[in-house]
Amino acid sequence: MILEGILTTLSPEGLLNIAPMGPKIGPDPSMKTFELRPYRSSTTYQNLKARGEGVFHVTDDVLLLAQTAIGVPLIPAPELRPARLVAGWILGGACRYFEFRVTDADDRADRARFTVETLAEGRLRDFLGFNRARHAVVEAAILATRTAFLPRAEILTELQRLAVIVAKTGGPVEAAAFRLLHDHVLKPPGPVHLDSTAARS
Amino acid sequence: MILEGILTTLSPEGLLNIAPMGPKIGPDPSMKTFELRPYRSSTTYQNLKARGEGVFHVTDDVLLLAQTAIGVPLIPAPELRPARLVAGWILGGACRYFEFRVTDADDRADRARFTVETLAEGRLRDFLGFNRARHAVVEAAILATRTAFLPRAEILTELQRLAVIVAKTGGPVEAAAFRLLHDHVLKPPGPVHLDSTAARS
Repeated sequence: MILEGILTTLSPEGLLNIAPMGPKIGPDPSMKTFELRPYRSSTTYQNLKARGEGVFHVTDDVLLLAQTAIGVPLIPAPELRPARLVAGWILGGACRYFEFRVTDADDRADRARFTVETLAEGRLRDFLGFNRARHAVVEAAILATRTAFLPRAEILTELQRLAVIVAKTGGPVEAAAFRLLHDHVLKPPGPVHLDSTAARS
Repeated sequence: MILEGILTTLSPEGLLNIAPMGPKIGPDPSMKTFELRPYRSSTTYQNLKARGEGVFHVTDDVLLLAQTAIGVPLIPAPELRPARLVAGWILGGACRYFEFRVTDADDRADRARFTVETLAEGRLRDFLGFNRARHAVVEAAILATRTAFLPRAEILTELQRLAVIVAKTGGPVEAAAFRLLHDHVLKPPGPVHLDSTAARS
């Protein structure tokens, strides 16, 4: 199955990249190994290819998920802690994290496959649980990264449906994250539009 | 915000009732107090009214959520442990639990409001995290309990959309839970149909 979370990697120069990532995990909940599938056009791909390590985070922080999905400034700046066994950073606001190294790579397709193994892991706090608003933000974030492929009208119809759930079952943070994504979809595409930033993730 | 989970209560005779419940929680993630809003026609309402206590569970067990939503037999039977500070039972397969007692009740509306305070709590295992398939099952469970109010065709259209997400991001358990809900919606309503069981929750 696919677990949506956030990945941190470093460029060869040591620049931090924070990007949403939906690894494929096995039935074993311990996540000793899992599979990352970044697009080859992404910064995540380049960093994994160059360094072969990073940190995957399970989180319910939908504001950070929304911000990283569309490549806007991270406000508030996420708290960072150095990883223990890899060169990289742990998001202090995450629920759980997995420091990993790449054991196998296959980049023949547009979407590469990196099999990774967990070297260290930790729990920072509990995941809230099933909240329909937070999940609606996750769905909205996926839609917001598809403005280049899907008709804008179709995305907006979907967002309208999700907005009802956010209003009914969420709080102010969920509303803010959703608004950010909605505004991103409404923004007219330009020569320097943010989709290029998102594509880099 | 609303947190979807599962509630266990006891009848005056000591019969266990397991039902989905979406309490209203405050911004404090510790959940020292929260609000339950069962329909007055439900068994949960009667049990809370009579005994004033129970156990709320945060869980990502979507099969149990689906089964309790539509009132079908619980297979496999959930593991149960006696609660410590209230007369009741803890679901051993849950992620976290909150034993509570009612501190205030308002049952003037069709949907009653019980303010409760947590007496004891515990963590049994980690919540997986954002998985689109599990969340699609939660949405499907909500739809499946609305067959009496919403046009069947509308529910089936929504389920079709959710089925794609379940197939793409879930495993066999998510598929089984979804199938259960889908079959429930397809079942022709009869004089002894299961909606009455669901309404009792």
